[in-house]
Amino acid sequence: MKILIIGAGGVGSAAVRIAVRRDFFDTLVVADYDPARPTALVAEVGDPRLVAARVDASDSSSVAALISEHGVTHVLNAVDPRFVMPIFEGCFEAGATYLDMAMSLSHPHPTSPHELPGVKLGDEQFAAASEWEARGRLAVVGIGVEPGLSDVFARYAEDELFSEIDELGVRDGANLVVEGYDFAPSFSIWTTIEECLNPPVIFEEGKGWYTTPPFSEPEVFDFPEGIGPVECVNVEHEEVLLMPRWTKAKRVTFKYGLGNEFIEVLKTLHMLGLDSTKPLDVKGVKVSPRDVVAAALPDPATLGDRMSGKTCAGVWVRGTGKDGQPRSTYLYHVADNEQTMAEYSSQAVVWQTAINPVIALELLANGTWTGTGVLGPEAFDAKPFLELLAADAPAGYGSPWGMEEKPL
Amino acid sequence: MKILIIGAGGVGSAAVRIAVRRDFFDTLVVADYDPARPTALVAEVGDPRLVAARVDASDSSSVAALISEHGVTHVLNAVDPRFVMPIFEGCFEAGATYLDMAMSLSHPHPTSPHELPGVKLGDEQFAAASEWEARGRLAVVGIGVEPGLSDVFARYAEDELFSEIDELGVRDGANLVVEGYDFAPSFSIWTTIEECLNPPVIFEEGKGWYTTPPFSEPEVFDFPEGIGPVECVNVEHEEVLLMPRWTKAKRVTFKYGLGNEFIEVLKTLHMLGLDSTKPLDVKGVKVSPRDVVAAALPDPATLGDRMSGKTCAGVWVRGTGKDGQPRSTYLYHVADNEQTMAEYSSQAVVWQTAINPVIALELLANGTWTGTGVLGPEAFDAKPFLELLAADAPAGYGSPWGMEEKPL
Repeated sequence: MKILIIGAGGVGSAAVRIAVRRDFFDTLVVADYDPARPTALVAEVGDPRLVAARVDASDSSSVAALISEHGVTHVLNAVDPRFVMPIFEGCFEAGATYLDMAMSLSHPHPTSPHELPGVKLGDEQFAAASEWEARGRLAVVGIGVEPGLSDVFARYAEDELFSEIDELGVRDGANLVVEGYDFAPSFSIWTTIEECLNPPVIFEEGKGWYTTPPFSEPEVFDFPEGIGPVECVNVEHEEVLLMPRWTKAKRVTFKYGLGNEFIEVLKTLHMLGLDSTKPLDVKGVKVSPRDVVAAALPDPATLGDRMSGKTCAGVWVRGTGKDGQPRSTYLYHVADNEQTMAEYSSQAVVWQTAINPVIALELLANGTWTGTGVLGPEAFDAKPFLELLAADAPAGYGSPWGMEEKPL
Repeated sequence: MKILIIGAGGVGSAAVRIAVRRDFFDTLVVADYDPARPTALVAEVGDPRLVAARVDASDSSSVAALISEHGVTHVLNAVDPRFVMPIFEGCFEAGATYLDMAMSLSHPHPTSPHELPGVKLGDEQFAAASEWEARGRLAVVGIGVEPGLSDVFARYAEDELFSEIDELGVRDGANLVVEGYDFAPSFSIWTTIEECLNPPVIFEEGKGWYTTPPFSEPEVFDFPEGIGPVECVNVEHEEVLLMPRWTKAKRVTFKYGLGNEFIEVLKTLHMLGLDSTKPLDVKGVKVSPRDVVAAALPDPATLGDRMSGKTCAGVWVRGTGKDGQPRSTYLYHVADNEQTMAEYSSQAVVWQTAINPVIALELLANGTWTGTGVLGPEAFDAKPFLELLAADAPAGYGSPWGMEEKPL
């Protein structure tokens, strides 16, 4: 297997640090628009299988050329979702398997944005599914932690734990604190604004996909391993678009534990138009306000040393258990910043995102996962993924996941 | 009198519209960095005494050259306070009387910003006072509405109403609403951020000037003419630096009726670093976040048609009346947007700012106000100013001011 990771930011770098401990691949090319970033990373990590390269992720022919140059078989897209389509198309062109952790962007419904979906997350990719299938090619979409591990949990719940599922409710919460900053998001603010200010999408059997106003249906969810109760609100997220395609849940939701302060900040940015991606003329130069917000804040990938706490990703499944009794179970995975920094020099949020596509690549390399077309994580067998994640090194990745029964 | 107004934005344009109704001057040159703005304004207003010109307000020699070219005797600075010093210096160089509505900028104390003043508002200008005096030149600083009319009220209170003043408390509040926008400040957001996020300054007899954290000492003040109660907080403002130089008040404060939502927005901008004026590198271009915030919001000067409500500026004076009895009086001036739009095509806030320097120019033209050095409005006789403001046209400006006794 010859891998290309596009993007040497937080998640891309963490994926490299995780992958070099494994022996399922021969070459790993790390490419970025700024070649200094992969060059520094490759020098620091010092694995002979690594190669640094430059790529323009906005240009599918630049992606295809790099794939051909190195004989790449599998591409992991680790840049922000604006670049999904050119990388996806470059892989199709050059014949490489494609993996990403966020899907092609949505566009709100032109007249009823808070009731009806417009162009949904991933729609552009799924539109190409039959072509990919016809050509025998594979794209594994949404294989980070959320989407990604959460979708694997959904598959696992349906196969192993439940006979009928009333709701698959993805719930994400953390107690991370960054010292020395009044405000320092632990994940890309560009992406956080995108997913939190777009109309959240919900799936219901019979009704299909529909949207609500941002921050709808607030709920306090009690997270495990000491994180405790966090206020969660509906957010637009890939799981809601992926899970109904391969599971039989009656309802699918995603709620994010943003916390009140963060919600207020996002509302203020929106009210002031500072969430916009449309370039503004500012004293003769063109900039998008959202890029300015991102530039004004510290880069979350560099904050690991000042962070403490844990982040939790998981799916709260409600329905009927295999025994025919009502069941309410939260399947989850927790990353502790202290541990990820000590072991991988990566902060918890980017590390937890990055470990999953590396596991997926390993399962593709050893033939456990196979398929053609554009497939979400729930289209594959969940058990081997969860076993590889939890098993101690060197057999597995040594990162256990958990299961907690909730009051009915 | 030959006048030069620098800046054809909201306040500069309103000053032109107000001045052309008066006959105390021969020529009024309106200059801007963008010559299209004064050209359009001059064409629209259509007074033969008007001339449009271009000027670089950041360059004192450009200012001095324009003064010489047109034989200008009086310059009104109507651009944002970043340009105070070059215009002030250009006037000194070229020998013109200088007027402004905001003074040279402050810099917080390097180690105790919320206890001690650093470089104060106007310090750079007052440092040149003896030179101006020695050369027989005059600068009238802070002659808008606040500072400006508020300082005239302070002078009037000391001369006519009070034998002893415990506190001169400037209080500014409004009930303006802009339709069609979630958030649309009625005055320059650049200046509002500057004055609200800098440490507010307070004067006390015996202690001198000192500072506090932003938004300190919240107080609900009941404004007249239907505006009603508004929450006001301490804000850095010129009056606190001007009034103690020419009056004998024991305490001088400035509180601004920002309202809770506006305070939260300003706090959020500060927390995110978006109030900063320091240029950031954003995908290869350099921009200051505060300029981006200003560019993302509608230009307040263009919102008059969508605005409704009133804005009130005034001074709450507490102390001992001329009769020896305790007295608490609010001297104020209200501008109603409906009226200023109908009569002057200017929204209320910029119109209320602009009328005062025009009155000052008229008093200088007819010799009622004279002086040398760097002088605040309270260094001049208040009565003729207030009479000219209130008297019906054509004798005066037809804009009455009011006085309200407050509970002791």
